[in-house]
Amino acid sequence: MPALQNDTFIRALLRQPTEYTPVWLMRQAGRYLPEYRATRARAGSFLGLAKNPDYATEVTLQPLDRYALDAAILFSDILTVPDAMGLGLHFAEGEGPKFERPLRDEAAVKALKVPDLAELQYVFDAVKQIRHELAGRVPLIGFSGSPWTLACYMVEGGGSDDYRTVKTMLYNRPDLMHHILEINAAAVAAYLNAQIEAGAQAVMIFDTWGGALADGTYQKFSLSYMKRVVEQLKSEHQGKRIPSIIFTKGGGLWLEEIAATGVDAVGLDWTVNMTQARARIGASCALQGNLDPVVLFANENQIRSEVARVLESFGSTGANTPLNATGHVFNLGHGISQFTPPEAVSVLVDAVHDFSRRQRK
Amino acid sequence: MPALQNDTFIRALLRQPTEYTPVWLMRQAGRYLPEYRATRARAGSFLGLAKNPDYATEVTLQPLDRYALDAAILFSDILTVPDAMGLGLHFAEGEGPKFERPLRDEAAVKALKVPDLAELQYVFDAVKQIRHELAGRVPLIGFSGSPWTLACYMVEGGGSDDYRTVKTMLYNRPDLMHHILEINAAAVAAYLNAQIEAGAQAVMIFDTWGGALADGTYQKFSLSYMKRVVEQLKSEHQGKRIPSIIFTKGGGLWLEEIAATGVDAVGLDWTVNMTQARARIGASCALQGNLDPVVLFANENQIRSEVARVLESFGSTGANTPLNATGHVFNLGHGISQFTPPEAVSVLVDAVHDFSRRQRK
Repeated sequence: MPALQNDTFIRALLRQPTEYTPVWLMRQAGRYLPEYRATRARAGSFLGLAKNPDYATEVTLQPLDRYALDAAILFSDILTVPDAMGLGLHFAEGEGPKFERPLRDEAAVKALKVPDLAELQYVFDAVKQIRHELAGRVPLIGFSGSPWTLACYMVEGGGSDDYRTVKTMLYNRPDLMHHILEINAAAVAAYLNAQIEAGAQAVMIFDTWGGALADGTYQKFSLSYMKRVVEQLKSEHQGKRIPSIIFTKGGGLWLEEIAATGVDAVGLDWTVNMTQARARIGASCALQGNLDPVVLFANENQIRSEVARVLESFGSTGANTPLNATGHVFNLGHGISQFTPPEAVSVLVDAVHDFSRRQRK
Repeated sequence: MPALQNDTFIRALLRQPTEYTPVWLMRQAGRYLPEYRATRARAGSFLGLAKNPDYATEVTLQPLDRYALDAAILFSDILTVPDAMGLGLHFAEGEGPKFERPLRDEAAVKALKVPDLAELQYVFDAVKQIRHELAGRVPLIGFSGSPWTLACYMVEGGGSDDYRTVKTMLYNRPDLMHHILEINAAAVAAYLNAQIEAGAQAVMIFDTWGGALADGTYQKFSLSYMKRVVEQLKSEHQGKRIPSIIFTKGGGLWLEEIAATGVDAVGLDWTVNMTQARARIGASCALQGNLDPVVLFANENQIRSEVARVLESFGSTGANTPLNATGHVFNLGHGISQFTPPEAVSVLVDAVHDFSRRQRK
């Protein structure tokens, strides 16, 4: 594998000095890009796209050809793992993901098994192919849903407004919920480690639905299982540190506890004050975030001014902190909207680079 | 008006001693009750129900006949104010609220006016009639949506997943957004004061969508306008203190700032740790909350144990705080689900009363 030409993202995750603040965007390879929609049309279906390493490579690289992004992220679906467990993932046209066989009774829960990684070979093949085609331009991020977030989909059978089914199981039959989460944690750890072996240079755990849990319940049913995953991750591969990131959407009240899992970086949504987050956990973890994705619908000046506000809020902690302090990866506070004008992303990426270089002078 | 027989709720809001922790539930008069669904069917439509003081009185009192609740809350819709502004509120069958004439351009925004309170007379008539029929059993809570939450509906024209339209206006044309919010704040203050004059004994501001805003933006576009409302509220009526409550769903990171508006109590959703909330703001404000509504789908023992957990988490702050410390109103962390089994609410209400009486011994 060729050496990394731009390792700014990795260094920021490890809180080493960087010349500017690196930036990538959650869901950067996606529907807001016309070239993505063209590939998606050729693939015939979303799963046809996600399960084909050629297509997955193509769409992973698309945003890098347009924008000066500092990382690529594997194009894949968050539900590959439960699909490999045999739950029957499918996408009804115009709807979100659905499982044919959701976990609704004790027998289904008890039958659940950590999947054979061979079922997920298409993901590892995509990782290898992307690394090859990236040729060292920027690092590649691997990812997985968190054990809890996967469990939400596995029990609900799809998305939900209130997570009533999965939370009812959690409150009524915590034994069953812990059984699912133990299996999910083992599967997620093995899945991420296989991505690392295939070439992923950093890994991220998306705890998209952790914020639906009550305080106390979050710690027991989401955080503790992410901690298990982090503890099992390969922190090095072929002599290189592989940093890890946890992002609990709506988890701003729990940052100290997330940092205490031993993860390298904590993702922040836009409700979190970056100065306060840095004061709370910035000595132990890098921070990733946290621009409101709707800012990308504003005019160029407004985008630049909101980017500056996020960068300044990270940079301004405490009298003893130099402005060129390390440990910030710029990102949105959630995935980019499919309706985003693609030209707004250029403005954002260039503003992050320009402003953060000036900050360091 | 007859004297209040049970003023536990009012005393808890004012952080005075109570014999037990008072409890009421957001949306306690609602679809989970068969008697509510029967009245709704007789009324013919949701707005037919909400705009008729006889029906509104009937459904407001229904949960009090079933459960030993410590407060009644006016049955009304959160969107009465923008409806009175002429935006054309209607409910499509099986869908949420919609406005026929959402605020989508500068002309529409500039034409917006504080409504004539005569347009809302049906609300004040309902308040009077409910007070009469309550005959002093428990206090009556009046309420309004927050200026920002009303603006979300007024600009989006209905509910939204991402608030893209209203937040795009906020980022692109902050002048227009501030214009709407100034008018909303004046309207909400006048509306709540008229409810107080009609007989409301406490008032609550529902900032249901404040948590959709980024840190910094929340303070400017939601909190500052709620502060204006609080500053204009009649804090006394006919010699009695009228306590006020602000609830920002998803606002757990901003509790200190909410408390600093001068409000009497702060509502908490279930992501907030009650012990920490009390340490942060419990010396200046009462706290209201914060059980996960899905707990009501669990078995009776589990409901009791989760109720105890919330009460203990409030009671256990600091070595110098007596267990019978004041300033907690028990509630859910959000509105009760329409699918809740009605018998679960009995278990909850009785558990709050029993456990909190024992806590004080």
